[in-house]
Amino acid sequence: MGGFADTIMARLDALGAISAEPGRITRIYLSPEQARANELVMGWMREAGMSARVDAVGNVVGRVEGPVPGGPALVVGSHLDTVRDAGRFDGPLGVVTGIACVAALLREGVRLPFAIEVIGFADEEGTRFNATLTGSRAFAGRVDPGLLETRDAAGVTVAQALEAFGLDPAHLDAAGRRPEEILAYLELHIEQGPMLEQAGLPVGVVTAISGATRMAVTLVGEAGHAGTVAMPCRRDALAGAAECILAVERLCRARSDLVGTVGRVAASPGAVNVIPGQAVFSLDLRSPDDAVRLDAFAAIEAEWRGIAQRRGLSLSMARMHEASAVPCDPALTERIAAAIAAEGQPVMRLPSGAGHDGMAVAAIAPIAMIFVRCRGGISHNPAEFASLPDIEAGARVMLATLRDLIRNPPTGV
Amino acid sequence: MGGFADTIMARLDALGAISAEPGRITRIYLSPEQARANELVMGWMREAGMSARVDAVGNVVGRVEGPVPGGPALVVGSHLDTVRDAGRFDGPLGVVTGIACVAALLREGVRLPFAIEVIGFADEEGTRFNATLTGSRAFAGRVDPGLLETRDAAGVTVAQALEAFGLDPAHLDAAGRRPEEILAYLELHIEQGPMLEQAGLPVGVVTAISGATRMAVTLVGEAGHAGTVAMPCRRDALAGAAECILAVERLCRARSDLVGTVGRVAASPGAVNVIPGQAVFSLDLRSPDDAVRLDAFAAIEAEWRGIAQRRGLSLSMARMHEASAVPCDPALTERIAAAIAAEGQPVMRLPSGAGHDGMAVAAIAPIAMIFVRCRGGISHNPAEFASLPDIEAGARVMLATLRDLIRNPPTGV
Repeated sequence: MGGFADTIMARLDALGAISAEPGRITRIYLSPEQARANELVMGWMREAGMSARVDAVGNVVGRVEGPVPGGPALVVGSHLDTVRDAGRFDGPLGVVTGIACVAALLREGVRLPFAIEVIGFADEEGTRFNATLTGSRAFAGRVDPGLLETRDAAGVTVAQALEAFGLDPAHLDAAGRRPEEILAYLELHIEQGPMLEQAGLPVGVVTAISGATRMAVTLVGEAGHAGTVAMPCRRDALAGAAECILAVERLCRARSDLVGTVGRVAASPGAVNVIPGQAVFSLDLRSPDDAVRLDAFAAIEAEWRGIAQRRGLSLSMARMHEASAVPCDPALTERIAAAIAAEGQPVMRLPSGAGHDGMAVAAIAPIAMIFVRCRGGISHNPAEFASLPDIEAGARVMLATLRDLIRNPPTGV
Repeated sequence: MGGFADTIMARLDALGAISAEPGRITRIYLSPEQARANELVMGWMREAGMSARVDAVGNVVGRVEGPVPGGPALVVGSHLDTVRDAGRFDGPLGVVTGIACVAALLREGVRLPFAIEVIGFADEEGTRFNATLTGSRAFAGRVDPGLLETRDAAGVTVAQALEAFGLDPAHLDAAGRRPEEILAYLELHIEQGPMLEQAGLPVGVVTAISGATRMAVTLVGEAGHAGTVAMPCRRDALAGAAECILAVERLCRARSDLVGTVGRVAASPGAVNVIPGQAVFSLDLRSPDDAVRLDAFAAIEAEWRGIAQRRGLSLSMARMHEASAVPCDPALTERIAAAIAAEGQPVMRLPSGAGHDGMAVAAIAPIAMIFVRCRGGISHNPAEFASLPDIEAGARVMLATLRDLIRNPPTGV
């Protein structure tokens, strides 16, 4: 084995050339670009020796049968859609690596004790309809009620877009798979963070996909003329928000398995010479451990309420998003760790702070993830980059993990 | 004397009805509304016994001669232009009160030892051309180079607007007055702040118009995924800005003659799930004492640089505005204070944090100001309000000050 990073990189380039915007990579759900990307990927799947089809939600499904046709499958996957002005690696790397690994196994004539599928999920990012994990949620039989009526910026519903894509919105549930059909789900993905780079390691294994809480917070004080209101008489909403932002940072720094971010802030009326009467800001709080996240949010909220009370501000909050952590399967994770160690590398275990299709697939199968180092931790950006040696290392770990699962199939097979 | 608040309020209502926007008060420089307001005010001036004219920059000038025609004048003034969606009091109150006081003096047949002028300045707010104090700067012979070429939002230059108004842009300097022509300048204005209201007083006397420093500040750190970058690895520009905002508040709270405000803030890229790589914010710093303001800015800058260095952020700043404090004349101020005391009121001395025409007039004459309490400190807003008794108190103090100056003219007359 070895030496398939060149092929993988060439295929990422080929997918990156399929875009709705010249000079930028933008490939959104149910677009003509998705159709072209699906065709290209199905060609590679067939070339590797797999059957290939597009399922009812638009996912590409490649499959090689095991001893019993239609029997349970080990699934390797990631997504083919992108954010706007994306990089080449986020999503496609996992799909293309999966195909390369299956191709290597089939070339060697390995006898499979189960089917293997490679899935290119249709919509992980949610770029078009602002609803993430559409492809993998449908795959797991978890279609959101109301999905079909969700509209894109042009007013087109998911149902209309499915029809235009040649799919039948009435049969979306045909994309759903039962737990007994799926042995396990493995996903290789760029880290989208700087932790492997800082540790000097090409690959790592994911312990859990972090849970998240997102809040929109509003502080209301009293606007006033910047020149005429003495400091002790002020109820400055932005000064209160500043104290709240620092409280988030301080409380999250106290634990290594917690991150908290205020990414948005605005002051009203927003004039240089007016004391802000209102400030709004966002909170994004994540941890691989739900108890840690919930405790931290309770502590943050208590701090915020104290700050607001001391300053005579009113505080209101709206929960924008709440998702529990999805732990990776310990046994699968240890197999990946062993594969990393067999490569002669130290094993770095890290949570995934970003969401992945595995979050949805976990509803029907044990999941595990391999992270590949990416430069500067940069993602969702044209500067996104993973090196050939790191891609090679990731693919070798995925292939070694598949070989291990083939030699010693997971219980129940 | 006494009992002219009803007339003053009725005239403020009449001026408030002259607006470019139905249901709101908006009266900008060199507009048809300014022409109508000027006509109305000139009528009141003539009714009071003054001559009235529009000067070369558009100011309304009412005048009653003293013993020597064309001799030096005591000037009472304020402005007739407004911000958009303004209140009724900011500016017009001082003009209308000046006319009422002169009318009272002339009705009584007081013998004047000097001329008295009442000026309605044409453009204090700078609403149209974003250049404040245009009327009073021209009156003081301090026209900004480049003023005539300044354009409004529609692309019209000041020169074009002057011509359309019936004025000659080539002779703008005819509005300028020499120091020997002006004995002193008195202005009555609503406080535009809450200090008199909090002290329970209808009127106060101004010690100085505060100097101001305005900065635009940019902090640059490193953007990153809110889920994937551990807290110790972050260079969060907004968290740095929050610390800078609190430093401003803390350092300004340490002195009673200093106010500092961060009225604007923005984080980039400004997404809920992205660590801010850049944060920009404004600073507005004011004090009646320039040394206090400059020392405070030096202390703030030192704090900011320390914060940026500790956090690995780069800090850059641009000075948007810098104006020295304009002290009120001590002798004139004591005459106003004596007039307040003679009304049986405690004398509150306070700086003006807002700018006024007196800042420009101070270049050619000693100035002094009377503040009238306004509800909630609110200004530049339809909710702006001063009560009839407070207007009466302010007018009585102005009239008593004028009587004192007539009885005991300032030196040099």
